[in-house]
Amino acid sequence: MNEKKIKKSEERCTLQEILDVIGGKWAMSIIYALFPGKKRFSELERMISGINTRMLVKELKNMEENKIVTREVFATVPPTVEYTLTEKGKKLEPIINELYKWGLEYVG
Amino acid sequence: MNEKKIKKSEERCTLQEILDVIGGKWAMSIIYALFPGKKRFSELERMISGINTRMLVKELKNMEENKIVTREVFATVPPTVEYTLTEKGKKLEPIINELYKWGLEYVG
Repeated sequence: MNEKKIKKSEERCTLQEILDVIGGKWAMSIIYALFPGKKRFSELERMISGINTRMLVKELKNMEENKIVTREVFATVPPTVEYTLTEKGKKLEPIINELYKWGLEYVG
Repeated sequence: MNEKKIKKSEERCTLQEILDVIGGKWAMSIIYALFPGKKRFSELERMISGINTRMLVKELKNMEENKIVTREVFATVPPTVEYTLTEKGKKLEPIINELYKWGLEYVG
């Protein structure tokens, strides 16, 4: 009984850790926007309604640290910054699609 | 092209609406804790490490309004409050389990 309790509590800690990575207000919307392929910062900003520049910078930095997106800077004038999903990030596609289907049925 | 853009933007709005319902810092952890069956408020509080009473009250209220959980009050002394997942909430089980598997492979 005690062992089970500890295991359960560890499990939930891990779920919490996962949600710290992708459970923010914007992370899944950004990942969703990146499913079709790489996007410039300015494109993401236009695509995700309601997000502001500061939040998008912060979320993308967090997602880069967590290896969900990669960031490439091109030496154009002005510089171009492009974001791409990593393999780890791409693995979320079926899950976010299922979540989206759930939402269409039950929320929207 | 324009039509597609508008459609895409609408889609993302809806995903954002979905995330407003279940994308908070704690919602998925609460749903996860309720998968095995109904739980008292005090049990949820113990099960979800790091959450405080105020946040749990707030999240459960939000989830009740969004028909993800139902709340039952029993006239014991002191009163007992129990929470159960609705059918809508239970439909999230495979999705959250997949998210959890993703996390075990890539985060934990």
